[in-house]
Amino acid sequence: MRATMIHKPGDIRVENLPDPKIVSPTDAIIRTVATCVCGSDLWDYRGINPVDQPHPIGHEYVGVVEEVGSEVTGVKTGQFVIGSFFASDNTCPHCQAGYTTSCQHREFINGCQAEYVRIPLADGTLVATPEQPAEEFIPSLLTLSDVMGTGWYAAAAAEVKPGSTAVVVGDGAVGLSGVIAAKELGAERIIAMSRHESRQKLALEFGATDIVTERGEEGIARVKELTGGVGADSVLECVGTQESMTQALRSTRPGGNVGFVGVPHGVEIPGEELFFSHVGLRGGPAPVRSYLPDLIGRVFDGRINPGKVFDLTLPLDEVAEGYRAMDERRAIKTLLRP
Amino acid sequence: MRATMIHKPGDIRVENLPDPKIVSPTDAIIRTVATCVCGSDLWDYRGINPVDQPHPIGHEYVGVVEEVGSEVTGVKTGQFVIGSFFASDNTCPHCQAGYTTSCQHREFINGCQAEYVRIPLADGTLVATPEQPAEEFIPSLLTLSDVMGTGWYAAAAAEVKPGSTAVVVGDGAVGLSGVIAAKELGAERIIAMSRHESRQKLALEFGATDIVTERGEEGIARVKELTGGVGADSVLECVGTQESMTQALRSTRPGGNVGFVGVPHGVEIPGEELFFSHVGLRGGPAPVRSYLPDLIGRVFDGRINPGKVFDLTLPLDEVAEGYRAMDERRAIKTLLRP
Repeated sequence: MRATMIHKPGDIRVENLPDPKIVSPTDAIIRTVATCVCGSDLWDYRGINPVDQPHPIGHEYVGVVEEVGSEVTGVKTGQFVIGSFFASDNTCPHCQAGYTTSCQHREFINGCQAEYVRIPLADGTLVATPEQPAEEFIPSLLTLSDVMGTGWYAAAAAEVKPGSTAVVVGDGAVGLSGVIAAKELGAERIIAMSRHESRQKLALEFGATDIVTERGEEGIARVKELTGGVGADSVLECVGTQESMTQALRSTRPGGNVGFVGVPHGVEIPGEELFFSHVGLRGGPAPVRSYLPDLIGRVFDGRINPGKVFDLTLPLDEVAEGYRAMDERRAIKTLLRP
Repeated sequence: MRATMIHKPGDIRVENLPDPKIVSPTDAIIRTVATCVCGSDLWDYRGINPVDQPHPIGHEYVGVVEEVGSEVTGVKTGQFVIGSFFASDNTCPHCQAGYTTSCQHREFINGCQAEYVRIPLADGTLVATPEQPAEEFIPSLLTLSDVMGTGWYAAAAAEVKPGSTAVVVGDGAVGLSGVIAAKELGAERIIAMSRHESRQKLALEFGATDIVTERGEEGIARVKELTGGVGADSVLECVGTQESMTQALRSTRPGGNVGFVGVPHGVEIPGEELFFSHVGLRGGPAPVRSYLPDLIGRVFDGRINPGKVFDLTLPLDEVAEGYRAMDERRAIKTLLRP
């Protein structure tokens, strides 16, 4: 099959790899219908995460089940499925508590920018759509495998409630999905922090009520000004740097909450500052599996259309251009069709 | 009046100071009926916090109103009152959200180890008891001015729920109060981490179901063992060191919560570890004012008896011995009678 490999930072290639095979009786093999490039793939691409040796890449996917292992009963050949970037058994205590990405048997699914993918723990990981989706739904369904579920978790961890004020730090695909989630969870005011016109436009379309272009101390002051000096009830931190975390913590009202979903790179949270802020903080890899049934319903109902975050669609063979476009911020997010 | 001054670390003296006077029309003056020494006073006493010049000390008090300013309407002369260590107006947005210790007009109340104290923002800060309390209730009522309210906040911030498992890190007066709070909030299992026999005994009397004497990695392993490998739903961090914070975070299940009330000294929370833990974290100076009406009721009803944390009672003139006894861990907490 054709599959994407990262050889070293900046070096993305499509190569021929052996087709994946069932390894465990709980596996499924899916034929990828659509996959995409994640902001977190750029950590490798930019050399911020080390790339010690060439390896397959990509962890977002929707597809059709090609084959299932002998113990798989929840999905069957021919079904259209979506799954999380972490395989999970969906039965352990952590899964039952809703934290499927802390599953006691979790396994990171990599190599999805390819024609076929092996999915471990298929019964726990995959959710079949009620019917074969129309072509127009495919981009939105694809976002449920990561970014839309991640934005949802950011809003849930930040405890967005009806009538509340939410701030979204980060205007990438996750931040934009966070705007959708905040709106769906009933936020009355949604302040998107963004400096890029195309992203501001999409944020407003998704439900943002205010755009803040300032950053750092000025950005914090602007949020305070917009909230009568109080700070926001909920802040969604969708970047993962020290600056974005500081921005999030200091934009939140005492008693408010920060949900942080940008994988922290070199972030340290000063205990004393957090203490005196009275801000609640929860983050982590989003348990997107837990949200799939609900979010699939919202997509099929036409309530949400997160697929709009894809502003570039390429054939898999042009994946390298997909990375470049995102790296150079020419694209918010690249969808790939194998 | 006689009042306690700290001159330098280890140097506590009772001296004659001028009686406090009404400064602002929202002030009240109270005659202290009982006061005490806080674990956080020991930070000064031990020189961990700098003591640049001699200053009055103590922030816990119950007393009788002696005089009120012209704008005070909520309490009157002769009433028995309890208040928080932070004065608060109880009307600003932060107070209304329940975070009185983040009041936009907050003022730290110091110098309570004395015969009289000036209380700013008396209407927002003080709560009168329904009647003059019997002598036996005075120690418990005194704890509501800080440690019992702080333990309560730790349990609330850690989201202790009926049927849940709670761990309490720290066996000082706050940790022991946290055991009471966890029990009142319905925890089914309460694991107290303590190495001191007298404190273990009190923890068990207050509702702890398990005692863990191990610390560090061994302590974490023991909590995991007691919780079927899962971790606790709620952890109350009542110390404020890097070690205790690490203990708390690593003892919590994914999706669980840490409430931290030990004032952090040099604590840094690694963003990446917090991220992958899925643990929620909220701390701060406890908004004890918010809890006063409820907790006063629980004391008068005889439901809780947090006054048992006082295992040493001294006249104010012997305050120096009260500090020494706590510093040397001969006493859990010292009550002082002016």
